[in-house]
Amino acid sequence: MPLIDLASLKPLFAPQSVAVIGASADPGKIGGAPVNFMKTSGFKGRLIPVNPNAKEIQGLPAFPTIADVDGPIDLAVFAVPAALVLPALEACAKKGVRSVAMFSAGFAEVSDEGRRQQERMTAIARDAKMRLLGPNCMGVVNFANRMVATFHAGFAQIEQGGRIGMVSQSGAFGGLSHMIARDRGLSFTYCMTTGNEADVEASDCLAFLAQDPATRVVLLYLEGVRNGPKFIEALELARANNKPVVAIKLGATDVGAKAAASHTASLAGADAAYDALFRQYGVYRARNFEEFFDIGYACAIGDVPHGRSVGLVTVSGGVGVLMADEAVSRGLDVTPLPEAAQAKVKALVPIAGTGNPIDVTGQVVADIGLFEKALQIVIADGGYDSLVSFIGSAGRNQDRMDRLHRLWADLRRQYPRKLLVTSGLNTPASRAHLQTFGVLSFEEPTYAVRAIAALAWFGEALASPIEKPAPSPRLPIPSMPMNEVETMVLLRRAGLPMVDERLAKNAAEAERAAAELGFPVVLKVVSADILHKSDVGGVALDLKDAAAVREAFKRIMTTVRSHEPKARIDGCLVAPMVGDGVETILGVNRDPVLGPVVMFGLGGIFVEALKDVTFRVAPFGLKEAHRMIRDIRAYPILEGLRGRPPADVDALAETLSRLSAFTAAHADDIESLDLNPVMVRPKGKGVVALDAVLVPRTRR
Amino acid sequence: MPLIDLASLKPLFAPQSVAVIGASADPGKIGGAPVNFMKTSGFKGRLIPVNPNAKEIQGLPAFPTIADVDGPIDLAVFAVPAALVLPALEACAKKGVRSVAMFSAGFAEVSDEGRRQQERMTAIARDAKMRLLGPNCMGVVNFANRMVATFHAGFAQIEQGGRIGMVSQSGAFGGLSHMIARDRGLSFTYCMTTGNEADVEASDCLAFLAQDPATRVVLLYLEGVRNGPKFIEALELARANNKPVVAIKLGATDVGAKAAASHTASLAGADAAYDALFRQYGVYRARNFEEFFDIGYACAIGDVPHGRSVGLVTVSGGVGVLMADEAVSRGLDVTPLPEAAQAKVKALVPIAGTGNPIDVTGQVVADIGLFEKALQIVIADGGYDSLVSFIGSAGRNQDRMDRLHRLWADLRRQYPRKLLVTSGLNTPASRAHLQTFGVLSFEEPTYAVRAIAALAWFGEALASPIEKPAPSPRLPIPSMPMNEVETMVLLRRAGLPMVDERLAKNAAEAERAAAELGFPVVLKVVSADILHKSDVGGVALDLKDAAAVREAFKRIMTTVRSHEPKARIDGCLVAPMVGDGVETILGVNRDPVLGPVVMFGLGGIFVEALKDVTFRVAPFGLKEAHRMIRDIRAYPILEGLRGRPPADVDALAETLSRLSAFTAAHADDIESLDLNPVMVRPKGKGVVALDAVLVPRTRR
Repeated sequence: MPLIDLASLKPLFAPQSVAVIGASADPGKIGGAPVNFMKTSGFKGRLIPVNPNAKEIQGLPAFPTIADVDGPIDLAVFAVPAALVLPALEACAKKGVRSVAMFSAGFAEVSDEGRRQQERMTAIARDAKMRLLGPNCMGVVNFANRMVATFHAGFAQIEQGGRIGMVSQSGAFGGLSHMIARDRGLSFTYCMTTGNEADVEASDCLAFLAQDPATRVVLLYLEGVRNGPKFIEALELARANNKPVVAIKLGATDVGAKAAASHTASLAGADAAYDALFRQYGVYRARNFEEFFDIGYACAIGDVPHGRSVGLVTVSGGVGVLMADEAVSRGLDVTPLPEAAQAKVKALVPIAGTGNPIDVTGQVVADIGLFEKALQIVIADGGYDSLVSFIGSAGRNQDRMDRLHRLWADLRRQYPRKLLVTSGLNTPASRAHLQTFGVLSFEEPTYAVRAIAALAWFGEALASPIEKPAPSPRLPIPSMPMNEVETMVLLRRAGLPMVDERLAKNAAEAERAAAELGFPVVLKVVSADILHKSDVGGVALDLKDAAAVREAFKRIMTTVRSHEPKARIDGCLVAPMVGDGVETILGVNRDPVLGPVVMFGLGGIFVEALKDVTFRVAPFGLKEAHRMIRDIRAYPILEGLRGRPPADVDALAETLSRLSAFTAAHADDIESLDLNPVMVRPKGKGVVALDAVLVPRTRR
Repeated sequence: MPLIDLASLKPLFAPQSVAVIGASADPGKIGGAPVNFMKTSGFKGRLIPVNPNAKEIQGLPAFPTIADVDGPIDLAVFAVPAALVLPALEACAKKGVRSVAMFSAGFAEVSDEGRRQQERMTAIARDAKMRLLGPNCMGVVNFANRMVATFHAGFAQIEQGGRIGMVSQSGAFGGLSHMIARDRGLSFTYCMTTGNEADVEASDCLAFLAQDPATRVVLLYLEGVRNGPKFIEALELARANNKPVVAIKLGATDVGAKAAASHTASLAGADAAYDALFRQYGVYRARNFEEFFDIGYACAIGDVPHGRSVGLVTVSGGVGVLMADEAVSRGLDVTPLPEAAQAKVKALVPIAGTGNPIDVTGQVVADIGLFEKALQIVIADGGYDSLVSFIGSAGRNQDRMDRLHRLWADLRRQYPRKLLVTSGLNTPASRAHLQTFGVLSFEEPTYAVRAIAALAWFGEALASPIEKPAPSPRLPIPSMPMNEVETMVLLRRAGLPMVDERLAKNAAEAERAAAELGFPVVLKVVSADILHKSDVGGVALDLKDAAAVREAFKRIMTTVRSHEPKARIDGCLVAPMVGDGVETILGVNRDPVLGPVVMFGLGGIFVEALKDVTFRVAPFGLKEAHRMIRDIRAYPILEGLRGRPPADVDALAETLSRLSAFTAAHADDIESLDLNPVMVRPKGKGVVALDAVLVPRTRR
C-alpha cells in the first residue's frame, strides 16, 4: 500500500474553493495578502473571506465563521494567531473542509508546548481526513488555476504557468525562489512550502508534482525529510514518470547540519545517506542557487541528449579550451570532428581550429555567415549528441542575433533529436525567444557545458528502472549481542559468504576440521573472556598440514592459559587461510530517517587515513552495487595492479547487494553490522568475509 | 639582472603620442576604429593618423608615412595587412618609434613562413629597442589616459578608470572581458592583449600592472607562458607589491591542453606545473568567467580580512545553512556567537537561531530595524574578521535598501578593519553604491562566501615573502646515464640523504662493510648486465650478523652465476636495512617552460592507483615543502596511524627543499630524477633514500 495518498492532495494544491480564515481588508496584512493576490491573479475558483468583524473584505462578501459558509470548501488558508488555531481547525473539521494551509507560527519550532499543540493539530486533521500544510509555512501557489494561497510579497504578481514545480521546506526560500526564477525568465507550475510538516511533507509535494503532466522538472529545497520510506516512494514515482528532480539539500557539512537542525523541527539524516540516496534515485544535487536554477532551466527547456558526445563551436579559441576542460572534467565526450568535416571548416576559415573545439575565430565578427556555415557542418557531419556554441558578444548586436535566432530555429527543426545550447553575452529577450523552441542560452560558457552534462546524466539515471534485489529471508535477530560464532552462523544463513570455520574442542577435532576445509588453515582461540587474541598467543596462521595444526592447537592452549589462567576457553576456530585477496570492509549503519545505509571501502589505511568510502541506502541491486564499487578512488587496486590478477568484483557486488537486502529486511532489528575484513579473491574465486560484528538495535 | 625591463614598457602602455599606421576614415574598419575610439574617449596625448592616401582622417591631419611625422612617437598602432608589416616596422625603427601594437595577423599562428616573418619582426624590434605588442592581438587600452589602441567594438565607449588590470593572451577575450566587466559595474585600469607575443609577453604586462599604483588586482587570462623564469619574476613582483592575481589558465585537462596548443603558437607547460606555481605564488586560479570576475571584483572593492572567522547573518535559516556549508568547505571558521551576544539577539527576536549562522528569521520583513540591531550585535560582539549577510528580497524594496545602505556605511566607518559582504536579490545601483565605501554585494549567497574565502586566502598567501632555499653546490652532471653507485655518490655530494652503502668485492669486504654500517643490512648484486636483481637471486634482506652476511654473499654469487653465467659481476652493495619508515617517492621532471617540477607522494599503491601526488616548481623553501607534504590525501599516514610513531616530516621537508634547490641549480643538465623509495623514519631519525635514477638532459 502506498504511503502517499495522491488523491487527497488535490483539494490542497488545485482547489475549486478557497476560504481565508483571518481575512483582512488590508492587503499588506498576512490575512489580506492572499485575498488581494488571488483577486489580482484571477483565481479560477470561489474565494471566501472569513472574518467575524466584517461583512465584506476587499469587495468580496465575508463570512463570520467557517461554519457559516455555504457550499463545500476545498482549502482553508489559516492567517490567524497561534492561539486561535485549534478551535478554528476543529470548526474546519466539522464543516468538512478538505484541506488547510497554515501560515500561523509558534508551534514545534519554538517550544515543547508548541510541539504538543502541533501534535493535536495533526490528530484533528487526520481524524477528519483533512490534509494540513504547515504550520509555519508560506503556503502554496498554483500557477495554472491562479490560486495564490500565500502572503509572500514575491507572489503579488504571478506570470502564466511554466514547467517547473518548486517544493521548499523553507517558506522564506519559497518566496525568494519565485523572484529569482522571474529574474531568469523561468516560470513555475506550482510553488509549495511545507514549514513544520505537521501532515503534508515535502515528499507528498514531490509525489504530486511527479505525476503532474505540466511539470517537467521538480526543484526541491530540502532541510531534511521526516519519513525515509515516504521520501523514497516519492522519488520512485518521479523516476517512474521520467521526471528529473534537482535538489538543494542543506547540511552538507557538520556545521551546516547543526544549523539545519536548530532551524526547523526537522530530524535531518546524516548527509552521506542523502548523498547516496540522490545518486541511487537520479536526483541532481545542486551546491548553490545558481546551479539549482540553471539545471532547473535546462530540464524545463532542453531535452535529454542521446549520449555524452558534444561538439564545441566557438568564436574564441580560449573559450573553446575552457569549455573543453569543463566538458572533460564532467565526463562528456569531446571527440574530434571527422577529417572530411574538418576540411570543410578549413575551406571556410583557413585559420580555424577544426578538431573539437571548432574555433571559427574572430573572423565571424566580420562575417556571421561563416559561423552559420560552420555550425551547419558540425551538426550535420559531427554526429554529436549535443552542440554548444560560444558567440562572444554577438548576442548584444540585434542584427546578428536575429540571424542567429533564425539559424537555431532551423537547426532545431532539422535536428530535433540534438540538444542545442548557446553561450556568450545575451539578453533576456533572446533567452526567452530561444526557449520557445527548446534552445538553451547561457552567458557563462562553462555553465552551458555543465547543463549539458546534467541533462546527459539525467538521461542515464532515468533510463534504467530502479532495480530491487531478491528479498532476503527473515531471520530472528536476538536483541542481545551475539558471540562471533553465532554471528557468523546467522550471516551465513542470510546468504552472506562468511568464511567456513569450525569450532574444534581439541587437537584431533582441529586436525579433522582442517582436513575437511583444506590446507592451509588458521587457528583462533575462542573465549568470551579474551578480547585481543593475538596478544595472548591465541592465533596461528598459515598451517600447512595436520602436524602443524596439532602442534599449533596445543601451543595456543598452553600459551593462552599461561597468559590468562582464569579465562574460559571453548576451543579453537579452524578456518581456511585466505592469502590471495584484496582486503575490503563492508559496513551497515542505521540512519535515523533513511534506514540502513551500506558502506564500502578498501581495508586498513584506505578507510582510516583516506576516508575512501562510499555509501548507498539499502536495499539496492547488482548494478548499483557495481557503481558503488567503482565509486572509490582506490578502485584500480581491484582491477589488478603490478601484475596482480583482477579481483572478483562480480562476487563483491553480489555480496553488497545481498547485504543491503538483508539489512533492509531487518531494519528494525539491526543498529549496525560490519563485515571486516572481506577478502575479494581473484576473478572467479569469490569473496569471503573473515569476521563480522553485529550490533542489535536497542528499542526505545 | 631582471628579465623584465619595466621602463621600456611605459611608452607602450602609457604613451603621450600614438600613431595609427593604416588609419582609415571609416570608423567601422580596423584602421578607423582606434582613431574613432580615442577621439570619443578623449585621449590625453597626441593622436597621429598615418595613411599615404589621405590628407585628413576623421578630422585629424594625416601623414603619408611614419617618417613624415614631426616629433617623437611613443606608440605606433599597426592596422595593415601582413604583407606591409615588415617595411613599416623598419620605418618605425628608423624613426625611433618607442613601441608598436600590432593587430595584423597571419604570422606564427598560421604557417612556418609566418613564423619566420615573426622572428624577423622580433629581431627588428629588439635591435631598435622598440617594444612590440602582438602581432595578432587586439591591442591595449589605458583607461586613465584614455588611450584606446584597439579595434574591438567592446571599447567604443570606455568608462572612467577603475582598479582592475586585465591581461589576456586572447584578443577576443580581451574585448569580451570589458563587456562582461561593464555588465557587472566593474572598471579597468588597463586592458592588455598579447596575441602571438613576438616580444611583449603576458609576464611583461603582469609586471607592469604589479607596480601600477592604480591597479588593485590583476586578472590574467592565460593560455600558456613562453618563458618560465620571466613569468616567475612577474609573479614575484606582484607578490612584492602585495597585488592579488586571479588567473584563468586554459588547458586544465588533456583535451583542453591539446586545443590550447593548436589555438596559438603557445608552448603550454603541463597543467600540474602551473597549478603548483599558482599555489606557490599566491595566484588564485578561477575555473570559469563567473568566478574570475567575482574574485576580481572582491579584490578590487574589498579588503583582505584579518583572519578566517566569519559571522553569518541571515533572514532565512535555510540560506544560513547553505552559507555555513560553503564557508566550512572553503576552510572558513564558523565559530558560534558568544553566549551573551546570543542572548541579546534572542531578546530582539525570540525565535532567532543565534549560534552561527544567526537567523533573524522572516520577522525582519515586517521590521527591518530588527535586522539592523542584530547586525550591530553580531559585528560588535562576535569578533569576526568578516561578516556576511543574506537579506532575501529586501534589496528590491527601495525604502528598505536605503536604510540598509545607511547601516552598512555606518558599520564600515565604525569597523574599518572588518570585511563586510551582503547577499540576496540586489540591483546594479545598490551594488554600485555599496562599492563606493568598500562593501561587497552578491546575489548568490554562496558566492559571497567564496569571495570572503578568496580574500582570506590572499591575505595568507601574500603575507609571507617567497622563501628561497640555500643555494645548492654546482656539481658536474655527466651527459651519459650513470650507474646506480655513481648516482648515489653524486646525490650524496648534493646533500641528499642517500643510504650509506658500500661496494664489496668479496665476502670479507661485505662483512667489514656491514660491521661499519651496523646490522641488520641488505646485500644487492652489482652488475650492469642484470636488470631485475631479485629475479636472479641477487638480493638478500635483513642480514643480522657477520655470518649471515658472509653466507648471503656467497649464495648470491652462486645463484646469480647459475642464472646469468655471462654477466659481469662487480660484487655486492651492502646497505643498512631500513625497516621503520613510511615509503615515499620524490621525483623531479623538467617542464619545458617552467623548469624542474618536484613531485611528492607516498610509495606503491598510493602513487599508482590513487595518483595521490602533489607538485611544486623548483626551487622552494621549507615552508612550501611542509605545505606540499600536507597536500596529499594520505598525509595522516605520516602523522602516525594505528599507534605507529609520527614520521620525521621535518627531515622530509628539508630533503624536498634541498632536492628542489639541487635540480633548479642543474636545470639545464637534468631531465628527470627519481628518489624511490625514500623511507621517512620516525620523528628525529630522518629520512633515507634507498635508490635513485637520474636521466641527464639531452641537449638538442
